[in-house]
Amino acid sequence: MPKIDLANVPERKGSGYPAEFAAACAERVRQRLGDAGGLTDFGVNLMRLPPGNWSSQRHWHSHEDEFVYLLAGELVLVEDGGETVLRAGDCAAFAKNSGNGHHMINRSQATAIYLEVGSRSPDDVITCSDIDMMSPSSDGRFLHKDGTSY
Amino acid sequence: MPKIDLANVPERKGSGYPAEFAAACAERVRQRLGDAGGLTDFGVNLMRLPPGNWSSQRHWHSHEDEFVYLLAGELVLVEDGGETVLRAGDCAAFAKNSGNGHHMINRSQATAIYLEVGSRSPDDVITCSDIDMMSPSSDGRFLHKDGTSY
Repeated sequence: MPKIDLANVPERKGSGYPAEFAAACAERVRQRLGDAGGLTDFGVNLMRLPPGNWSSQRHWHSHEDEFVYLLAGELVLVEDGGETVLRAGDCAAFAKNSGNGHHMINRSQATAIYLEVGSRSPDDVITCSDIDMMSPSSDGRFLHKDGTSY
Repeated sequence: MPKIDLANVPERKGSGYPAEFAAACAERVRQRLGDAGGLTDFGVNLMRLPPGNWSSQRHWHSHEDEFVYLLAGELVLVEDGGETVLRAGDCAAFAKNSGNGHHMINRSQATAIYLEVGSRSPDDVITCSDIDMMSPSSDGRFLHKDGTSY
């Protein structure tokens, strides 16, 4: 059955970030739709981001493209070039290895809902723009930028 | 600027199918959002499918995953297992090489709007389930299943 039963896709709340960086995303809820459908080339997540929460720490990927499509609510996209408001029906793309760190912040009074799509590469490294943190996607560990562990 | 200006993304109407197979998709309109955002690992298309139209000929991919998310309207998903109605907020995934041909038909009175995501592989071959047609994605030609051209 190709249709995905959303009610049976597990919800994962918060992030795996080290404690000092986790609070900003503590109420974020992710459902891994692509995984639920048996896809391996890319991930598709349905995200719910309550007021005050961030989509992630501001970051960029070395070897993975990303795309977001806002389904409901309003978010502020933060990147090197400044801030941009995204509303339902807006979308944004982040090409791999751009070096342009990005994330989204919910400064509204309502939960925002969006889809995020990302490719899968064993070579990918995530680099955070504003904090001393990076992560090799292959093992999901969070490291200082000198390679030492948190 | 990561935000994509939808008003400036070209609209492509219809399909490149041979004439005898094009009518079913003649009013389909596609905007290539991922391409507009400079992404190469996967494509993301915003699709508008008026009443009576099909998303495509029923098909499956040898080397590419696919995902669809219905934003508005109602579509009937047709696959080997039968028919399933999709409404706004529903989604479906089609893992590569499943052999399970699929497409969506708009039997409602309103235009349906959906996102489709697909990976990019130079090895991909599209096989149609109900007609004598295939296509190597690398060159986009439409062929009979014996390899001869239309």
